[in-house]
Amino acid sequence: MVRHSATLALDEALRARQAAGQRVLHLGFGEAGLPVPGTVADVLAGAAGRNGYGPVAGSPEARRAAAGWFTRRGLPTEAGHVLFAPGSKALLFALLTALPGDVVLPTPAWVSYAAQSALAGKRVIGVPVPAEAGGVPDPERLARVLREERPGVLVLTVPDNPTGTVARPEHVRAVCELAGRHGLAVIADEIYTELIHDARTPARPAALLPERTVVTCGLSKSMALGGWRIGFARLPAGPFGDALMTELTGIASEVWSSLAAPMQAVAAHVLAEPPEVRAHIAAARRLHAGVARAVHAEFTAAGADCRPPEAGFYLYPDFGPLRPALAARGLDGAAALADALLTEHGVGVLPGDAFGDDPRALRFRAATSLLYGETEAERRAALHGGDPLALPWIAAALTRLRAALTALPSGPRRTR
Amino acid sequence: MVRHSATLALDEALRARQAAGQRVLHLGFGEAGLPVPGTVADVLAGAAGRNGYGPVAGSPEARRAAAGWFTRRGLPTEAGHVLFAPGSKALLFALLTALPGDVVLPTPAWVSYAAQSALAGKRVIGVPVPAEAGGVPDPERLARVLREERPGVLVLTVPDNPTGTVARPEHVRAVCELAGRHGLAVIADEIYTELIHDARTPARPAALLPERTVVTCGLSKSMALGGWRIGFARLPAGPFGDALMTELTGIASEVWSSLAAPMQAVAAHVLAEPPEVRAHIAAARRLHAGVARAVHAEFTAAGADCRPPEAGFYLYPDFGPLRPALAARGLDGAAALADALLTEHGVGVLPGDAFGDDPRALRFRAATSLLYGETEAERRAALHGGDPLALPWIAAALTRLRAALTALPSGPRRTR
Repeated sequence: MVRHSATLALDEALRARQAAGQRVLHLGFGEAGLPVPGTVADVLAGAAGRNGYGPVAGSPEARRAAAGWFTRRGLPTEAGHVLFAPGSKALLFALLTALPGDVVLPTPAWVSYAAQSALAGKRVIGVPVPAEAGGVPDPERLARVLREERPGVLVLTVPDNPTGTVARPEHVRAVCELAGRHGLAVIADEIYTELIHDARTPARPAALLPERTVVTCGLSKSMALGGWRIGFARLPAGPFGDALMTELTGIASEVWSSLAAPMQAVAAHVLAEPPEVRAHIAAARRLHAGVARAVHAEFTAAGADCRPPEAGFYLYPDFGPLRPALAARGLDGAAALADALLTEHGVGVLPGDAFGDDPRALRFRAATSLLYGETEAERRAALHGGDPLALPWIAAALTRLRAALTALPSGPRRTR
Repeated sequence: MVRHSATLALDEALRARQAAGQRVLHLGFGEAGLPVPGTVADVLAGAAGRNGYGPVAGSPEARRAAAGWFTRRGLPTEAGHVLFAPGSKALLFALLTALPGDVVLPTPAWVSYAAQSALAGKRVIGVPVPAEAGGVPDPERLARVLREERPGVLVLTVPDNPTGTVARPEHVRAVCELAGRHGLAVIADEIYTELIHDARTPARPAALLPERTVVTCGLSKSMALGGWRIGFARLPAGPFGDALMTELTGIASEVWSSLAAPMQAVAAHVLAEPPEVRAHIAAARRLHAGVARAVHAEFTAAGADCRPPEAGFYLYPDFGPLRPALAARGLDGAAALADALLTEHGVGVLPGDAFGDDPRALRFRAATSLLYGETEAERRAALHGGDPLALPWIAAALTRLRAALTALPSGPRRTR
């Protein structure tokens, strides 16, 4: 039995509450929440004549554009090593199906890795992340696990979802060295890599373990095109990568055929990085950083521990410091905490156990990107205006969050 | 190891030959080969602002449109029982993953059912189709199999790919009765249902075994939108359908999230069946029928047995009557026959064993839809002109096919 993806399920539940007229502060879903740039909409419209299936891996134009995009980022890539799909989620599923052996995940990690591993019949070994940043297992703990287990795959998320952080270069180096020594394949999920707030270059597993690292990426986050389902992967050069490409295109050909042809035209345009695409992503980066920092300040002001946001639009606060007060009213784990926020305050967050974290820990993920506005006009103002925190709807959301967090420890005692 | 889908692999190989300047008669791929109607292109362009993920099963508008579409076809349907996906292939994969038990396939059957079953860890039991038409197992043979085996799933393809025929109502009734008696779930792949040449209503498994039949469909064939990847399924009302919907949306949420939002807008438009959509499909039906009949005449004139085409754009000739002459030159099975047609005459067809048929049989599938033209102008002329057989490029293709088939028995002896 495969459960509905926790993030998508929460999103649907929160939108149903909104549709029913309830006031909801939607911090539950990793949708980038920004409008489509006009030029990108024009490219989709201009590609409406493309209705042929085309090659499974993607059109030559789209693959060349992606190869250039990776090459400009310090990962020399040939078009033949790129594979497009309807979302990087589909690619991750295909990778976890194709690559043999148990799967090592950082804990916490994005909700779908474990579910996909289960679908593919794989065992998951969770290894906690360091205190500094999420997305990679703590190297010492990973080394300990590898003394006893013989997994086949290591998934790294740099930058990270759910913690909104960027793994320290020394940690990425250390886990890639371990992966190399133990013969693991590395899946580097880099879908948030364009959204590092200070635009620094992160340590890249594909540069550190070139022959056995697959990079997955997509336009859902950087370009806020989640609903267009554009994902792509970079496979390594060499025999491992060549065999894997054969296997992955085999799975792709039997599960989804190809990315929709008009969406491949969009990918070819965006990945060539014309000026307006660069400007759009830079503006998005500023907005994500500004709002995530403000929400971070609310969590820490409320007494939570929380890693400062470094990328994307996520925070992963730990309300452990408030445990005595919260436990006194029956909030003794992630699910109870998230439920109280939702039912008492209309604040939707995803409890840490959805990410494989300890269910007793008082942790959750808050996505900040749906605060930018309810309408396209509001979102455009947030993206292209000055200080987003000065916009009344964003300021009101922050005020509301503060009120909820302030009231949380002193709410009514809950019964099971 | 998952092999690249045979149809997609052949298509890529033939297009590579064409790109290298070789003359190819491409009968190898089930792409409908027709242009996008202007109004449909406009709908895609108008939906470019839709970039949110949206519900996994599809937007309320698209689901309502699909429900109405099924209801108008004699299958009363609520929107909540419809599930969209990037292609019906993805839905078939999810169904074969979700439904328990071995899978019964008609033989021959579309290439991907068996490959998807293997991906899902399922055993396949092939049961030959009747002489009259493909897409359903011969009822007597199925009854015999069910005395010894206890499969969980029966896949029916009405109308059929690869034979281009429509199963006889008495055969559909008989196999549905058997499925009901033995507790099988039925997957009714109806992607060619709009392309029955005389537009008659076929026997529908979902009407015969309402509580345990899932219908899969899409716009790839009727609207020639293969490259847009728009598929949808109708789940039965009742507890079986409700549990299956939960399971399928779970798988969908972990593998592809949702159909691209702009494509859902297209689906909502097309499935509401405005006049220009009806006219487009009617014109396509006439063209498919006319060209398939002409190619059928070539096969029978060459001495092959071949079921007359009744739907879609496929033929499945049996060159068994020419076995002595073909065997004398070393063509003793489907692969050798298809290879000789390709290497000696540039005619690309898919050998019967790709569809699970006996590799020694001299059968292959010929898709006739890529004969309509190389350019969009040619395809528009074929679709909207008078007699497509009078168009010079279609007439030339038929002449070329005739020459190849005539020369086939007397070609050089082949060595292994």
